[in-house]
Formats: sequence, structure tokens, C-alpha cells
Amino acid sequence: MPDRQRKSAAEHPFAYEGLDRVIHERARLSLLTSLVTQPRGLTFAALKRLCDLTDGNLSRHLQVLEDEGIVAISKDFDGHRAVTVCRLTPSGRKRYHDYLAVLEKVILDAAGAAGRRTLRDLSET
Amino acid sequence: MPDRQRKSAAEHPFAYEGLDRVIHERARLSLLTSLVTQPRGLTFAALKRLCDLTDGNLSRHLQVLEDEGIVAISKDFDGHRAVTVCRLTPSGRKRYHDYLAVLEKVILDAAGAAGRRTLRDLSET
Repeated sequence: MPDRQRKSAAEHPFAYEGLDRVIHERARLSLLTSLVTQPRGLTFAALKRLCDLTDGNLSRHLQVLEDEGIVAISKDFDGHRAVTVCRLTPSGRKRYHDYLAVLEKVILDAAGAAGRRTLRDLSET
Repeated sequence: MPDRQRKSAAEHPFAYEGLDRVIHERARLSLLTSLVTQPRGLTFAALKRLCDLTDGNLSRHLQVLEDEGIVAISKDFDGHRAVTVCRLTPSGRKRYHDYLAVLEKVILDAAGAAGRRTLRDLSET
């Protein structure tokens, strides 16, 4: 964590500066979490089903993620048929994991408040 | 989980329908996580510092949370001085915990993908 950010975290412990807005948006968080499970990538059709997105929303959010260098989109060949495949880039994967570490902190802060020892307990309230 | 939601989760495992948009917004997530740690409530001044928000942003987001019945705002007396205090309502606390359970699922899905056993490991990549 850079010095500036560490200082800010001490003064503003609940500001969660690291909650990267590009990733935090619900549809994009959904897309990235499905992609992180699939190093070989996912097709448009698979992403649409897994994340329950319309064509329009899927295209719009993938465009944002591609522009940010988080996702790479390429044409692969499945026999003679071209298929569009999306993958996390290495820097995108790192950025996603940095974001997840902040999400984890949110959950641990809330779990600490409730006096619970494990995250799993939180879903049982 | 209602039947409809369970069916949807099976078909669209990464849709995370339960990521309540009212709570997911970064500033509001920040406010609610600080409030969940303080059953007796927090003043405007404390929330502003803890969450690193401007007066305008703080007022705007608290208004949304009050309109949704998640937060209650009242005047308390500190000696002779009136102080405005914000607290989570019981239904707000439940809604926040329901949301947290979905956040936890996001983290566990991603952790599972990485073949890791604990959440803490994720922040060490």
C-alpha cells in the first residue's frame, strides 16, 4: 500500500479507497468473477448466460473493461466457425485481486463488529 | 432464498442478484459498514471523517438510506447541545447482512477459482 493510501486508511478507516469503481459496478463484478474462474476465457454466449445480461449490457460493460485493459477480446476458431472469446489480461487479474482484497476488508470489518469469528457465520443471521 | 431466486442462481451463477444497488454504491457501503460497527450510532462529523466524504455527498447518501428505511436520523442531546445521530434500523441491519452474504459469495467464488483455501490468501497475490 503506498504511504499516502496508508495514511488515508488510518484517518478514514471506512473510506475503502481501493474499491475500484470500474470493477465495483455490479454487472462488471459479475463478468470479472466469472472470467477469473476460466483462464481459457469465455464466449459472449456463455458470459451472457452466466451473468444474466442482455446483449446491450454485455457489450457495453465488456467495452469498458477492454478500454481499461482488464479484459482482452479475440476471435478464436472452433473448427471453421469464428467465436469471440473474452479473457482477463494479467494486469486485469491483478487489478481484480487488489479489488477483492478491499471487499474482503469490508466483510471482515463488518464481521468484527458483529463479534463473529468467521465470514460464513455472517450469512446465517 | 425464494424459489425464483434459487432457480435463477442455478442458471446464472454469477449474476449476484442479491447485490442490492442501494447498498452496493461505494459511499453508502462505506457509511453502512461504519454504522454496523456502532449500535449507538454515529454523528455527521464522525461519519464524514470515517468515510472521507464531503458534506454534500454525506447528506445526499444519508438521504437515500433514510428514504429506504435503512438508516434513522435523530437529534440527541449532548448536555445542552443538539447533535444529529445516524443509526442503522433493525430492517436496515438485516438488509446489510443479506447484502454481505452475497459479497462473501463473490469472494468465495473467486477464491475457489484460484484454488485457495482461505480468503486471506487472496490479498497476498
